[in-house]
Amino acid sequence: MVKEFNVAVLGATGAVGTRMREQLEQSTIPVKSLKLLASSRSAGQTRIFKGKEYTIEEARPESFDGVDLVLSSAGGSVSKRLLPEAVKRGAVAVDNTSYFRMDKHVPLVVPEVNPEALQNHQGIISNPNCSTIQMVVALKPIFDLFGLKQAIVSTYQAASGAGQSAWNELDSEAAQHVNGQEMTAKILPVKAAAKHYPLAFNLLPQIDVFEDDAYTHEEWKMIHETKKIFLNDMNASQLKVTATTVRVPVPVGHGETVYFQVDQADKASAKAIQTAIAAGDGLVLQDDPAQQIYPQPINAVGKRETFVGRIRPDAENKGSYWMWVVSDNLLKGAAWNAVQIAEELVKRDLVHVADPEKSYELFKEN
Amino acid sequence: MVKEFNVAVLGATGAVGTRMREQLEQSTIPVKSLKLLASSRSAGQTRIFKGKEYTIEEARPESFDGVDLVLSSAGGSVSKRLLPEAVKRGAVAVDNTSYFRMDKHVPLVVPEVNPEALQNHQGIISNPNCSTIQMVVALKPIFDLFGLKQAIVSTYQAASGAGQSAWNELDSEAAQHVNGQEMTAKILPVKAAAKHYPLAFNLLPQIDVFEDDAYTHEEWKMIHETKKIFLNDMNASQLKVTATTVRVPVPVGHGETVYFQVDQADKASAKAIQTAIAAGDGLVLQDDPAQQIYPQPINAVGKRETFVGRIRPDAENKGSYWMWVVSDNLLKGAAWNAVQIAEELVKRDLVHVADPEKSYELFKEN
Repeated sequence: MVKEFNVAVLGATGAVGTRMREQLEQSTIPVKSLKLLASSRSAGQTRIFKGKEYTIEEARPESFDGVDLVLSSAGGSVSKRLLPEAVKRGAVAVDNTSYFRMDKHVPLVVPEVNPEALQNHQGIISNPNCSTIQMVVALKPIFDLFGLKQAIVSTYQAASGAGQSAWNELDSEAAQHVNGQEMTAKILPVKAAAKHYPLAFNLLPQIDVFEDDAYTHEEWKMIHETKKIFLNDMNASQLKVTATTVRVPVPVGHGETVYFQVDQADKASAKAIQTAIAAGDGLVLQDDPAQQIYPQPINAVGKRETFVGRIRPDAENKGSYWMWVVSDNLLKGAAWNAVQIAEELVKRDLVHVADPEKSYELFKEN
Repeated sequence: MVKEFNVAVLGATGAVGTRMREQLEQSTIPVKSLKLLASSRSAGQTRIFKGKEYTIEEARPESFDGVDLVLSSAGGSVSKRLLPEAVKRGAVAVDNTSYFRMDKHVPLVVPEVNPEALQNHQGIISNPNCSTIQMVVALKPIFDLFGLKQAIVSTYQAASGAGQSAWNELDSEAAQHVNGQEMTAKILPVKAAAKHYPLAFNLLPQIDVFEDDAYTHEEWKMIHETKKIFLNDMNASQLKVTATTVRVPVPVGHGETVYFQVDQADKASAKAIQTAIAAGDGLVLQDDPAQQIYPQPINAVGKRETFVGRIRPDAENKGSYWMWVVSDNLLKGAAWNAVQIAEELVKRDLVHVADPEKSYELFKEN
């Protein structure tokens, strides 16, 4: 008999939550029951899942009674408050927010890269940041074959990475501009920040808040999450990572230039890297300059894969290469990676919390 | 008595040519007469310069009779055909196209960086590529103070860098998208290329044609022009440069993430680099994360300066830093840099060709 699961989607009405429901619908996970949870504001709305209508409920601790699996994307403060409650009730939570990512008791997982990290989970598994995920998927076959010393990344991130409201803002700014009106900005670059700037027809070199060291928190995430995913140590020094993250006027689909240095420079070549990318899990090679074939956001929207092109060596630095990486930030960067983690949990028979009370104690103080 | 000059603008109706006329109007150059030259298609149109109407003439070799100074931006093939003719007639030409840039007899000049290269010109001076100019202006004070080992640059380039028609195409694609129509692309990424892709709400990692080594010609230009400008040697190995260039849906104003490594790592600091940028020629420091102050294309449009922010060290690589550089690609990246070169020629009393016949022979075979 196939085991079936009671699943809850927390933050079910957002850009990522909507896609979590859709990706779950298309997944291999046997769903016995579904709960769609959100804030009281959205409670009472309905959504369709596999042809059946579901009413959205306000998320409370008791919502998780009887739930086996939670897909969560309702914001860090909601995850902080409610995921320990879910775990206490025996549910396993895959969390798309950054809140638990650096907790040493929480695996940070990209199934193509480090699925084995799931093995000893204690109830909460974190989904990495969208811009981190597509970069590590692309770097994985290179890391395995040639080793990796360093990655220097510049991002071209879509508006939807800041949520549905930021996506809407880009749309309305574009319409304002086309109609000869002044653009009004109230959300980007960071909703809670003091100043807001238009993104349409502009570039904003700020994603998330600034840290004391003048890096943004988004840049901090790319650095430390990449180290944790590859080396299980957020401060690992054997893999250097640095980033500048920039918001661009694209609705969906992040781009990244990744300049990386391999360990075994003598073994590597652009051709070997292309071959490895073409054969890599979750990757599609789009790299034919003569045919003008390279990844573009408009072609990546709605796809689960990460697209890689523009692979070529830096002629002046042996062992250093460029690549251009594009993926749907709402799918592989968020909803699909979370559902994929859930599929992996099912496959490995890990949809249970060994000691719910102990996990609750671990996470409630987090 | 102030010396006055007979000036011609070649390619007077394009995005850059228009701005050359405007920048000339606001410049310190004493203009005795002005000729506006373009293709036969535009001949007969009129333009205003200092309150007076001028009729555009078709550009021919004889157009340059009696001309002292040519500002040229009509495309490489026009420069190839007509600039030797201008020089033969004793005119000095400042050329915005890439055609003569790598010629060893042609200075490649950014007045804030290498004005002394003008001294031995033989009639043609090249304006560097737009993305190169703003990068070298920003790197100049760093190069002088701390030395420079390497620059790794990713560009975020505006549509207008590919000309007025590309700018128009972005505008019409945006209107199509806002009105729910399909976007039609006929110009970008490269007009003469086989395939065209929409830029609006998208990213195109191709600027100019591809070289055999899988770099684009735009990337090739950034590498070799930077070496020629700083070290007067397009293949100088003591300064390593590499680039990935990407077109973004912005009308005017290029952005660049520049990751650079200084020579004297012990002497340099983010603070010292900020101070040097703030005091640098043609530079404006916009770097206050706490106040969300950083360069943005919409704020750079119409300005002659290059704007720099997001300066910070790579904590894992001593001596390596990031910065974010924005400038109006049509002004400092093209028209203003050309007029600024002309001002410098006037100031240095260099608006004459030593041996017009010899220069003609040099350049006609080019």
